[in-house]
Amino acid sequence: MSSPYLSAGLARRTESLTSSAIRDLLALTARDDVISLAGGLPATDLIPVNRIAAAAESVLRSPDAVQYCATPGHRTLRSAIAARETLARGGMPVSADTVVATHGSQQALTLLAQALIDPGAVVVVDEPAYTGALQVFSIAEAQVESIPITDTGMDTEELERRLKAGLRPAVVHTVANFHNPRGVTMSDQRRRHLAVLADRYGFWVIEDDPYGEIFFGTTESGIDAPPLPIACHSDRVIRLSSASKILAPTLRVGWFVAPPGVCGAVELLKQGADLCGSSMTQLMAAEMLADTSWLAAHLAVLRREYSSRATALTSALAAEFGSRLTVSRPAGGMFAWAAFEDGTDTGELLPVALDHGVAFVPGAAFASAAQYRHSLRLSFAGSTPAVLADAVRRLGTAHAALTRVR
Amino acid sequence: MSSPYLSAGLARRTESLTSSAIRDLLALTARDDVISLAGGLPATDLIPVNRIAAAAESVLRSPDAVQYCATPGHRTLRSAIAARETLARGGMPVSADTVVATHGSQQALTLLAQALIDPGAVVVVDEPAYTGALQVFSIAEAQVESIPITDTGMDTEELERRLKAGLRPAVVHTVANFHNPRGVTMSDQRRRHLAVLADRYGFWVIEDDPYGEIFFGTTESGIDAPPLPIACHSDRVIRLSSASKILAPTLRVGWFVAPPGVCGAVELLKQGADLCGSSMTQLMAAEMLADTSWLAAHLAVLRREYSSRATALTSALAAEFGSRLTVSRPAGGMFAWAAFEDGTDTGELLPVALDHGVAFVPGAAFASAAQYRHSLRLSFAGSTPAVLADAVRRLGTAHAALTRVR
Repeated sequence: MSSPYLSAGLARRTESLTSSAIRDLLALTARDDVISLAGGLPATDLIPVNRIAAAAESVLRSPDAVQYCATPGHRTLRSAIAARETLARGGMPVSADTVVATHGSQQALTLLAQALIDPGAVVVVDEPAYTGALQVFSIAEAQVESIPITDTGMDTEELERRLKAGLRPAVVHTVANFHNPRGVTMSDQRRRHLAVLADRYGFWVIEDDPYGEIFFGTTESGIDAPPLPIACHSDRVIRLSSASKILAPTLRVGWFVAPPGVCGAVELLKQGADLCGSSMTQLMAAEMLADTSWLAAHLAVLRREYSSRATALTSALAAEFGSRLTVSRPAGGMFAWAAFEDGTDTGELLPVALDHGVAFVPGAAFASAAQYRHSLRLSFAGSTPAVLADAVRRLGTAHAALTRVR
Repeated sequence: MSSPYLSAGLARRTESLTSSAIRDLLALTARDDVISLAGGLPATDLIPVNRIAAAAESVLRSPDAVQYCATPGHRTLRSAIAARETLARGGMPVSADTVVATHGSQQALTLLAQALIDPGAVVVVDEPAYTGALQVFSIAEAQVESIPITDTGMDTEELERRLKAGLRPAVVHTVANFHNPRGVTMSDQRRRHLAVLADRYGFWVIEDDPYGEIFFGTTESGIDAPPLPIACHSDRVIRLSSASKILAPTLRVGWFVAPPGVCGAVELLKQGADLCGSSMTQLMAAEMLADTSWLAAHLAVLRREYSSRATALTSALAAEFGSRLTVSRPAGGMFAWAAFEDGTDTGELLPVALDHGVAFVPGAAFASAAQYRHSLRLSFAGSTPAVLADAVRRLGTAHAALTRVR
């Protein structure tokens, strides 16, 4: 990055990215002998490849599917998303005009950062935070402040204290459903509180929701869907989601719902950034999202399988480590969050674990400061229960080897 | 753009974009009663939709095609591009490691601007220039300087005079083959001259080449391919191309070839921007690019048809307007460039032309200053010869109506 022929701003903007733990780890997980619980990939074996192939065949019958697309997305997709968002909001109508389709929700984050954040502006994130969001805000040269996540999501009482003390964020970013990496879901009360704060202090909330459809927590009354979106409680909420986790990452279809001024600004920026998305993959996503009986059945399979994988992982961890490891009880999403109680440093454990053929993400990768050194994120999504059991055995052996050395 | 809730930088960066002529025109061309010669779209009827459908079916047999992709592009695609680039450079070997696949070549331009250009840095562009490049450099807040295009491409003698007088660009951007909008191709001598200047003055050349494969100019010796790329003559050249014009825009597959330091910087930025491209469309593009006998036959059809459309357009314009209109003689690409000799202002002609059911892009859309007001760009790519003849008749009627009013 130090070449005099690259821009000075590049070095500044990407300083914190050059040694991203996630980047380095994703490289390692490509090794055939490593079981990776590190990545944020959905289960390959659960991606509906036959339905995707049928959608490809179907949309390619229209010449519409091979040309350039409108910059804010193909109308058919925007309408399908608006219909699903209306359902997600308990019937509060969402117009297709307020939907912009992006190249995955990561592009939505990037373009929103360009539209809403000046260098030096304050952005509040979860602590711990989704690393992809930290990356975007680093490139945008924002001043990032964090608010702790508790078992009921971002601590909005703490946020309110900071606001009263003078904090003036342009944007508050949170993953309210099945948080990455913590796994928790924000309570309805905190959603309403955050919405009130957004209205009172005039900041945007980016409600980043890639996992909201993958719920499987059970109560006496059955399966628990998360509470209504934060967007139901304020007009200052921009809600992001994606087809990557429920259909397939390869579609590169994400989206956000926002007021017209924000949509218009992002449309301009997207035209400069890449002209438009793929009309083919957008129409494929639209077909699958609008095929409601197929989608309901597919989501039921995903929820059942992810639930069984989550149980397999957490049970194996309990059996292997007992009280030496505290493990979250996932009720949705793709991740378990765990913390060693015996002083194990997960940054030290990782290379030993890789030697023993298993990968995870150390907690420090999600922290802005030197935190979570005893924590780790484990993805249960990508592996069958048998493979997860094997992975946990390997982790146990690695942990024993590290403890012996110490 | 004046909302206090959008970033101050946004207004500054997008100031010149809010009333983009191309944007407004693309909206108009959606009208069913308008024959559009305005857009930069390849011919829909020549997009190989059956081959694309076969490629989709073929790649979706592998689970590799539905997951996330490596950030710089799927290895299979990068290798296929490297092989074609090696051919394009007359056998000079190009390694797949120096290829980065992007979401269309527009994204390559955007990420390169972020990697190479600080706000206020000088960027030299063609005069007239590709509007998509002007948009990117405007968002990057570059100081844009133009060098005129002549019949043999960017006037490198004028560029050298400006460099000697102290101009210090970070980047020189040019469309060397079948220029958009002028249609001309840079001579071999000027390519070598530009490469020498890049080495001497230490700037990057962005050689933007979406149209180089669509050549159909004829000499006594047969069909004329353009001269060897500028990239053959200096290591300070970043060469961009795309599958959009030769396969289909819907793939959203573009790419560039550059030294490793530039590739690494763009990879970091792309990871933040959108994580990665679509493995499905990248593998589809790779399959078609590597299917060399099919591709050769397909390109032969494209060249023959585009040639026949170019001739149909320019002949009809000559018959309709005679000496009142000077028309370029396209030898490739998608555009004819014309200039009225009778004082007609093409900005005034456009609304009348739309009333008569035909659209084009006025020359002023490609100028940084108040130039080219008698010029216009006409795309022959998207219409059959019969439709082109109809379009020119409509343009003649519109021109007569405008002249009568005057």
